[in-house]
Amino acid sequence: MANAPATRINVGIVGISGYSGGVALELLLNHPGARVSYVSANNTQGKVSEIWPKLAGRTPLVCEKFDLKKAVALCDVVFLAVPHTVSMKITPKLLAAGRRVIDLSGDYRLRNPAEYARWYGARHKDAKNLAKAVYGLPELYREDIRKAKLIANPGCYPTAALLALAPLSTTHAKVIESVAVDAKSGVTGAGRKAKLQFAFGEVNENFRAYKALYHQHVPEMELYLSKVAGKNLTVDFVPHLLPVNCGILETIYVRLKEKLTPAAVYKIYGRFYKKEPFVRVLAPEAQPELRSVVGTNMCDIGLVVSKDGRLVVIISVLDNLMKGASGQAVQNMNIMCGFREEEGLQ
Amino acid sequence: MANAPATRINVGIVGISGYSGGVALELLLNHPGARVSYVSANNTQGKVSEIWPKLAGRTPLVCEKFDLKKAVALCDVVFLAVPHTVSMKITPKLLAAGRRVIDLSGDYRLRNPAEYARWYGARHKDAKNLAKAVYGLPELYREDIRKAKLIANPGCYPTAALLALAPLSTTHAKVIESVAVDAKSGVTGAGRKAKLQFAFGEVNENFRAYKALYHQHVPEMELYLSKVAGKNLTVDFVPHLLPVNCGILETIYVRLKEKLTPAAVYKIYGRFYKKEPFVRVLAPEAQPELRSVVGTNMCDIGLVVSKDGRLVVIISVLDNLMKGASGQAVQNMNIMCGFREEEGLQ
Amino acid sequence: MANAPATRINVGIVGISGYSGGVALELLLNHPGARVSYVSANNTQGKVSEIWPKLAGRTPLVCEKFDLKKAVALCDVVFLAVPHTVSMKITPKLLAAGRRVIDLSGDYRLRNPAEYARWYGARHKDAKNLAKAVYGLPELYREDIRKAKLIANPGCYPTAALLALAPLSTTHAKVIESVAVDAKSGVTGAGRKAKLQFAFGEVNENFRAYKALYHQHVPEMELYLSKVAGKNLTVDFVPHLLPVNCGILETIYVRLKEKLTPAAVYKIYGRFYKKEPFVRVLAPEAQPELRSVVGTNMCDIGLVVSKDGRLVVIISVLDNLMKGASGQAVQNMNIMCGFREEEGLQ
Amino acid sequence: MANAPATRINVGIVGISGYSGGVALELLLNHPGARVSYVSANNTQGKVSEIWPKLAGRTPLVCEKFDLKKAVALCDVVFLAVPHTVSMKITPKLLAAGRRVIDLSGDYRLRNPAEYARWYGARHKDAKNLAKAVYGLPELYREDIRKAKLIANPGCYPTAALLALAPLSTTHAKVIESVAVDAKSGVTGAGRKAKLQFAFGEVNENFRAYKALYHQHVPEMELYLSKVAGKNLTVDFVPHLLPVNCGILETIYVRLKEKLTPAAVYKIYGRFYKKEPFVRVLAPEAQPELRSVVGTNMCDIGLVVSKDGRLVVIISVLDNLMKGASGQAVQNMNIMCGFREEEGLQ
Repeated sequence: MANAPATRINVGIVGISGYSGGVALELLLNHPGARVSYVSANNTQGKVSEIWPKLAGRTPLVCEKFDLKKAVALCDVVFLAVPHTVSMKITPKLLAAGRRVIDLSGDYRLRNPAEYARWYGARHKDAKNLAKAVYGLPELYREDIRKAKLIANPGCYPTAALLALAPLSTTHAKVIESVAVDAKSGVTGAGRKAKLQFAFGEVNENFRAYKALYHQHVPEMELYLSKVAGKNLTVDFVPHLLPVNCGILETIYVRLKEKLTPAAVYKIYGRFYKKEPFVRVLAPEAQPELRSVVGTNMCDIGLVVSKDGRLVVIISVLDNLMKGASGQAVQNMNIMCGFREEEGLQ
Repeated sequence: MANAPATRINVGIVGISGYSGGVALELLLNHPGARVSYVSANNTQGKVSEIWPKLAGRTPLVCEKFDLKKAVALCDVVFLAVPHTVSMKITPKLLAAGRRVIDLSGDYRLRNPAEYARWYGARHKDAKNLAKAVYGLPELYREDIRKAKLIANPGCYPTAALLALAPLSTTHAKVIESVAVDAKSGVTGAGRKAKLQFAFGEVNENFRAYKALYHQHVPEMELYLSKVAGKNLTVDFVPHLLPVNCGILETIYVRLKEKLTPAAVYKIYGRFYKKEPFVRVLAPEAQPELRSVVGTNMCDIGLVVSKDGRLVVIISVLDNLMKGASGQAVQNMNIMCGFREEEGLQ
Repeated sequence: MANAPATRINVGIVGISGYSGGVALELLLNHPGARVSYVSANNTQGKVSEIWPKLAGRTPLVCEKFDLKKAVALCDVVFLAVPHTVSMKITPKLLAAGRRVIDLSGDYRLRNPAEYARWYGARHKDAKNLAKAVYGLPELYREDIRKAKLIANPGCYPTAALLALAPLSTTHAKVIESVAVDAKSGVTGAGRKAKLQFAFGEVNENFRAYKALYHQHVPEMELYLSKVAGKNLTVDFVPHLLPVNCGILETIYVRLKEKLTPAAVYKIYGRFYKKEPFVRVLAPEAQPELRSVVGTNMCDIGLVVSKDGRLVVIISVLDNLMKGASGQAVQNMNIMCGFREEEGLQ
Repeated sequence: MANAPATRINVGIVGISGYSGGVALELLLNHPGARVSYVSANNTQGKVSEIWPKLAGRTPLVCEKFDLKKAVALCDVVFLAVPHTVSMKITPKLLAAGRRVIDLSGDYRLRNPAEYARWYGARHKDAKNLAKAVYGLPELYREDIRKAKLIANPGCYPTAALLALAPLSTTHAKVIESVAVDAKSGVTGAGRKAKLQFAFGEVNENFRAYKALYHQHVPEMELYLSKVAGKNLTVDFVPHLLPVNCGILETIYVRLKEKLTPAAVYKIYGRFYKKEPFVRVLAPEAQPELRSVVGTNMCDIGLVVSKDGRLVVIISVLDNLMKGASGQAVQNMNIMCGFREEEGLQ
């Protein structure tokens, strides 16, 4: 990277021992416009190369317990890859100190503190910033992101669902009768935890649904989908645990009150995503698959219309740690900081 | 097996080199009422222990190319684990010779030769027996199976879907608005083939839908579901390829014109399957998972009802090679031949 | 099971929530000569069907915290599927009450308390019974097992290694120069634990060695190998963690001071295992593979001799939960209790 | 990549439909000094995005059947990712036309045509260039690579073995008594083929050795190891098929005639690889694992010495498609063409 820009922004990552923190770190170490200036984690400390042996020789950084003063002193932008409820304790202090924050947790995604309390089981402690946070889905909110101080980086499931549903909901909200999202996610989506239910022997050669119809990503999907549609839409959402490391595939069943032809549907999607660097609408005959997007920041979308034209099946795939988390976070940073949107993501 | 019955029936298996043929062989070698008297395969011949090293030392049988005379001479019942179109060439001859046939292919599942031609891409050559075949789903057609000469053993996907949908369709057909079946199947469901698309490097750490809305199991599901319901029902069906060896999980979205309470739904299912040895309706809080049924002949069913009572999500799991193929075939044989229905299946 | 024997022995299993306890339970529920009369576990209680949903409908047993009096009152034979150090606290009491014990832990496998302390990091508290325990490898110690009160069920790695090495060590101990055992085990070999290192995201698409040259199974291998050989032999042992649920494959490099021909080697192994129901010596061209033995109590052995005749590569495979643990434990029970050795294991 | 060099070299890839061709393509599309100017494959033609959907939107290149004139006209350097025997037909023509060739097949790795015939089962047709080819292992032959016209890119197994063995063989060749290499490779190492033995259902949850002691990579290992050692060394090599997509781990047992201390061994390796960008010698307590190197061009090496100092266990890991094939090929191109050695590989 001999030709890196003369000045780089200083970036901190809080929570590098988790999967999304680790991926954020790897992306930012390779980013020509960023210098990783601070890393922390609360359960593991020490050399980064001990936490992520893959990065041995790549960085001399040492991971410490989170220290607000250090973070403020060393960073322009801070990525929070921490569990929900933790983020809302740190964020107001970082913002108050004039730092920009990209929060990968669920703390700032909903607008309504009561909704937050209901779905996340905790009272929201930072209603002020909740009201100001920008939902970091660039394909819908690019201009807001450009000016944001606090990004609520979208959940992995909502990202796949909203990218899949936004075009049709924009043009045909009135005729949408119901939306069912059947989601399948790789195991890293559940975080890096010592829990028996995510042990290899329990997940491998197995498959199951969980939290059917009652997952905490439902209100996030419904909120932003309804905004796009200009009317309230509900989402019936059933997530499943897929025995792969990374990747989400969502098969979405949209029932319509009126007929749509396949050609019309393809046209809507082609137009909507024409200039987007990270969304690909597949050709009519092609099927999206996980491996086309794993390790990338891409979301691929495939479309199938029933013979009677009253059901559109939308299939979207993305890497839950990339476009579904840290890749999208870097995309947001690029937009906020004036880098090329693809910088560090190819 | 010191106490095996004095007389065993002689059973032949045509097509033992495939996965379902192999499982049928293994089950029947352990079955106290059966003697495997004939095995054949058209692409591989030789000692059974060379085709299935797992069975080394278990049987001295030698696998040959299919020979009608031998099959007739040596067998009372013949299992056909062959591709569709092959079965309808052999079946009429075996029946004419007085042998009973359990056909695991798709050749005798539909009633209408025109439908067969449309979905299987070949003209049906045995319309006579097509009309007489009994659909081998014991939970619906046990009495017919008892007297059958020819069993059309159900497809793996339709078995999971019909067992999931039969109770609700029996009691509430009138209020069913739509049915979407989102199916995920292990790779053995595609057969044992040297195709690049099923190579380990293409399937592992990957996931994709295929034949969305246009799979050949659709008419089979719709035919028997409509019979149960007493009215025509359509099924929107999207199958996916799961990176596991065995197992199918179907997440089924049934939208209703009227409300149903969770308690009402559980009652319907509890009653319907009260006495069935191979269907388990899970407790309200429990989630079915593949590993509970893989290697068994069980179908587990879980139920979730939306808050507004207008959507029932039914999740059914089974082993595609067992209850979805050879296990069910043995269950059918047990019923046809007067054995205890669970014989050789525990 | 209409023809089950009039009297069954009463069997208890302590530690059913682990993988080997679960497999023991499944095997014994199907065993025509056994009645599972008592099950316990210290970290999980409740209906067996809640701990192992696969067994729903198979047994009304309820799992409790271990209670010595109950175990003594209800059981003839007790399987201990507990961690090492736990077993040696329970065993003496069960033996004192006249119960027979099959211990699946490492507590009674070594002969020397000092060796135990060194490798297991704990003082041995039952030296008396340690001296009396019979090492439950039927292929070597069948006659002793027949009369045993306490069986030290062999470790998974030692079982595969000893079965692979016993024939050559019996006939050619003098010319063995060195033995290296390169072992690869499925994840259930590590037990059922909520540890990050065994989480799906850490094991899947990964592979690594662990405890190279210093695993606690080394002294067990060396002890019984030396007994067979009639001289001290050392074993250089490197285990690896394989991303599969079940199965061990060991590739064993035996360097010799003198030449041996392939024919001579095959003859030695063929003779040694001629009458054994659970060891198969493969034909010269055949390669053992995990899937031939997973789910069975078999150990398959393949043999390759170098061109110069000075290196014999022995490859052995078994299912770590079957022949490597609970299957072998049932085999031992069969021998101890006068059942047919294969009973309940086919 | 705003700052890419003004002139890029034109690179062609022959055989992009295989795994190593696909990875080479992906790496070179991202390489700031290269322009992919020509791609071909003999069994699949069409848009690159149809062959590798992952690359949709990344390149407008169209893949054609190999055409020598086009390749010569459009390329400065040609990567041959073709099967052995194909390469030796194309290579002499490309060299005669003044193009540089990096051959990923086995055609130019051995020096002796007779050895080639013996291990690859075909007569060598280009003895002239065989004599001139440079073995592309930069850690041993960097200076020769700089001036080479034809690179024989090393095999995946030999790369891992030679990097593991070179340091010790350089300093202690005289005391090496025997070398056994127990190798485990992910499935992509076998190429991208429609063969039943590599089907998901045959490889998943399975593990097996193959070609034990008789794999065609043996003479390649022995040739270059003996060069490094300055004396003839033989290698006993047993490869195994690991149920993962990518990665090789080799556990290497080196028996010595004299003692070595762990400290001495670490010193030898630390020195040897001090300045190498793509080899990491792990700290004494650390274990190399696949996931640290998969997706990178790194080779990680771990070392364990037996208590008696007479056995050194060397564990090396690399990604078979990166350092074991296309990553190393790009590294070689970088050296040949004067780029920074890490260019395009981070």
